[in-house]
Amino acid sequence: MITTVRIVGAGRAGSAIAARLRERRLDVREHDDAELVLLCVPDRAIAEVARGIDPGPWVAHVSGATTLSALEPHSRRFSVHPLQTLVLARGPEQLDGAYAAVTAETADALEVALWLARTLGLDPFELADADRPLYHAGAMMAAGFLVTLYRAAAELAEAAGAPPHALVPLMRRTIENGLEPTGPVVRGDWATVEAHRKAIKARAPQLERLYEALAERTAA
Amino acid sequence: MITTVRIVGAGRAGSAIAARLRERRLDVREHDDAELVLLCVPDRAIAEVARGIDPGPWVAHVSGATTLSALEPHSRRFSVHPLQTLVLARGPEQLDGAYAAVTAETADALEVALWLARTLGLDPFELADADRPLYHAGAMMAAGFLVTLYRAAAELAEAAGAPPHALVPLMRRTIENGLEPTGPVVRGDWATVEAHRKAIKARAPQLERLYEALAERTAA
Repeated sequence: MITTVRIVGAGRAGSAIAARLRERRLDVREHDDAELVLLCVPDRAIAEVARGIDPGPWVAHVSGATTLSALEPHSRRFSVHPLQTLVLARGPEQLDGAYAAVTAETADALEVALWLARTLGLDPFELADADRPLYHAGAMMAAGFLVTLYRAAAELAEAAGAPPHALVPLMRRTIENGLEPTGPVVRGDWATVEAHRKAIKARAPQLERLYEALAERTAA
Repeated sequence: MITTVRIVGAGRAGSAIAARLRERRLDVREHDDAELVLLCVPDRAIAEVARGIDPGPWVAHVSGATTLSALEPHSRRFSVHPLQTLVLARGPEQLDGAYAAVTAETADALEVALWLARTLGLDPFELADADRPLYHAGAMMAAGFLVTLYRAAAELAEAAGAPPHALVPLMRRTIENGLEPTGPVVRGDWATVEAHRKAIKARAPQLERLYEALAERTAA
């Protein structure tokens, strides 16, 4: 399919992707021309970097939120977004078991995009360009807002004198057990919900609004 | 310390706890008298069941939200709450790696409570009786509301045509990588936040309030 790939950007995504493509015996380049130029730069830099690339090769980005129009003036273009949180301290094995959102406008582009996703070890699904912001909001809820939720729970635990890290095995197992709805709101145990509300109002009022929004969605 | 334990209740907690105590070679009973009577019944049933037990043995509950006063008229009393989500389909190994909130009013009671927690394979921390509702609100945020968060993220993914289960590896890794704050709110990438808001308003307005409450806490 493709044997030469130029990767622009050596951040968390670029490093893991370059390492994986080298593992797969592809010719990975940082500066030279290649059949595919993969932009692994911050979202806000994608359009400018794309404009600086001579037309000809496939040009793609790995951003979750960015539409394909950011790749102008290139028409041989697509996006593969690894749906995973990546860190520099880990290697290409970070990509294993993750999914990828693939956006392409032509059959040719889709073929290259699917090939890239699978070569990276990702499980691809197609995503319409116009649906990217909504998709990315969902991804952000599952990652960034998961941290926010943990920190809110940790604030309550700390205010009660309990060690916040004690919540982590509970969170892991909740996911491992299949994310089944649980807790007093689900059981209709309103006495416990009222006790929570009273305690939060008195001791952690900064979390009242979040508690109510979560309770409302849980009941829905 | 204690060699005979009567366990009242064979639900998710009672089953795992009975199995673990049997593994530890304790004499576990369902009906007969014992040195320790452990109430593993629903929260709302604790007070009634406690009143039906003849005074004498240690009487304890494993509830997160319930205060020790529910164990009246017993004065030899305490609570050990395994901070874990338990299912009937799994065995006592569910308790491994979990923490336990231990509440006791006397040195003697604390000693028995810590012994029980450690015998169950739990890592105990002390929790004041008055702090239980706040502690339990935190535990509920970390478990029940984690499911709510996943379902909200899944609603967005589905509305965008992406498979909701693709979010699960992302959530797992976010925890595994240490729950470090991440995402556009943390980075101050307001253009992306605005794109999320617009997409949610148009396609999933039922999630607007939750998104805003989470964004507000993330920024705080």
